Amino acid sequence: MVIRGAPVIGVAGAYGVVLAAIQYNGSNRGDMDKAILASTVAIKQARPTAVNLGWAVDRMITLLDDQNIPCLELKDKLLAEAEKIADEDVETCRRIAKNGQDIIQDGDVIIHHCNTGSLATVEGGTALGVILEACKQGKNIRVLVDETRPRLQGARLTAWELEQAGIPYQIIADGAAGYFLQKHIATKVMFGADRVARNGDLANKIGTYPLALAAHENGIPVYPAFPLSSYDSVCPDGNSIPIEFRDEGEILNISQDGKSVYPQNAHGLNPSFDITPHDLITAWITDMGIIYPPFKIEENFEKFTGEHS
Amino acid sequence: MVIRGAPVIGVAGAYGVVLAAIQYNGSNRGDMDKAILASTVAIKQARPTAVNLGWAVDRMITLLDDQNIPCLELKDKLLAEAEKIADEDVETCRRIAKNGQDIIQDGDVIIHHCNTGSLATVEGGTALGVILEACKQGKNIRVLVDETRPRLQGARLTAWELEQAGIPYQIIADGAAGYFLQKHIATKVMFGADRVARNGDLANKIGTYPLALAAHENGIPVYPAFPLSSYDSVCPDGNSIPIEFRDEGEILNISQDGKSVYPQNAHGLNPSFDITPHDLITAWITDMGIIYPPFKIEENFEKFTGEHS
Repeated sequence: MVIRGAPVIGVAGAYGVVLAAIQYNGSNRGDMDKAILASTVAIKQARPTAVNLGWAVDRMITLLDDQNIPCLELKDKLLAEAEKIADEDVETCRRIAKNGQDIIQDGDVIIHHCNTGSLATVEGGTALGVILEACKQGKNIRVLVDETRPRLQGARLTAWELEQAGIPYQIIADGAAGYFLQKHIATKVMFGADRVARNGDLANKIGTYPLALAAHENGIPVYPAFPLSSYDSVCPDGNSIPIEFRDEGEILNISQDGKSVYPQNAHGLNPSFDITPHDLITAWITDMGIIYPPFKIEENFEKFTGEHS
Repeated sequence: MVIRGAPVIGVAGAYGVVLAAIQYNGSNRGDMDKAILASTVAIKQARPTAVNLGWAVDRMITLLDDQNIPCLELKDKLLAEAEKIADEDVETCRRIAKNGQDIIQDGDVIIHHCNTGSLATVEGGTALGVILEACKQGKNIRVLVDETRPRLQGARLTAWELEQAGIPYQIIADGAAGYFLQKHIATKVMFGADRVARNGDLANKIGTYPLALAAHENGIPVYPAFPLSSYDSVCPDGNSIPIEFRDEGEILNISQDGKSVYPQNAHGLNPSFDITPHDLITAWITDMGIIYPPFKIEENFEKFTGEHS
């Protein structure tokens, strides 16, 4: 959890493969490949929910196909590929921020969940990148930052990024989002995505589902923003996405007025992601443009990925 | 906020009227009544959302109708009435706990919001009282205690009460409730009510609405438990219930791993209650029995209050 946020997790995974290659000191390609492939198992298992990790690692591994490349040269090629993935993430975020401007209007009050900014990507951010770009363009935006318990990524990271950028924001309890949606004070809901299934369901930080549900119920549009590298074309729906449970300590380690607040023997239960069904989502903001329901990008994926390369 | 929980707020309000009466040292009924009535304005404004406060204060004030009672005797009568309200709260909670047994089944996994136990009532609790009684009767229950940010009444108070009673519980982030409802791990949702409108909409601790919405969406039944003194017969619907905003400090005063987690200049926005529309509610658990939709208790209110007196 030193590194978090689906896009930057992918980049870190790519550099993880580079590290595994560098740690091999011999000159036998077969042994080297074995060492690299062994490392990828551990890397992929580190964070099961975000698809970007598997995507980036698999992309690195394709370089092993050419068995004629000597070990030293392969190390260079792997490093270059990891750097390319990192550079692409910057460009991807730039496109997401630009594409999102069709959505964001002057005067919007946006509820934002978790952290999707430059602290979750190599640079620029996804949903938060769209908000930052809107403000750069002079749009008058206010952000209701939900805390995002238990790790408080909203209160700690998103609030910090907004403060640096001079954008007006207020922190709200996660449970308070429903109030601002019901009263139509919030005009949009935005967040990222850790994995998007073929039917449009998506996994994102715990709390995304009830937020999207309350928005949908009150007719407030819901916009996840993510790179199409978060789209998992082999995953049929949200039920097929593995949900990471994290340590109960994430819940129990907070204190209030300087005192621990939990009973001594308290236990917590800590699913870290939930599934937002596709029918709650108004549109995707992606590096390839705004994509509307029914999210049938499978037929057009060649086109999208063609544009991408 | 030394005293919280709608039922015990009502009892405290009644004793507040007694204190105002005691503080009057003269023997002129006109002056005494003026002093008492002045205090009721401040008492009622202390907590605008819970109807029990106004209900209890108004009930106390009816004793002022008889202008022939001398000052000293009126003080005694007011104290006796406050004690009666407190005693009735104990009996009311006993009935709620008993009536709720028709609902609770062996094996239930109950998501509980905020605190509704003996720390929110004179004794016994409302929703939590039902759970405690179920366990006393040998039903095997597990409780998912949502934290209830920002004041953490779930994590601090409900968890403590469950631990004292030896009932298995786990603390979950407020945003995680949707996960357990979507996966049908939770079998019921329970909470209290601060004010119930004539159409069945109810105000309760912030976060109740998205919780009830996610439960309803997934076919998990939603049971508020409250005394019928929380029913406000002059309030047509949820939109007419005033929502108390509390200090942003309630959000900003937590720390994690011993460090403050918020940016230095952070601000919060802190509505303390939200409105759960009647169509999300499966049934009310009240001191007068289980009441099902369409919650037309107005026609039967005489019957209910008749049974009550």
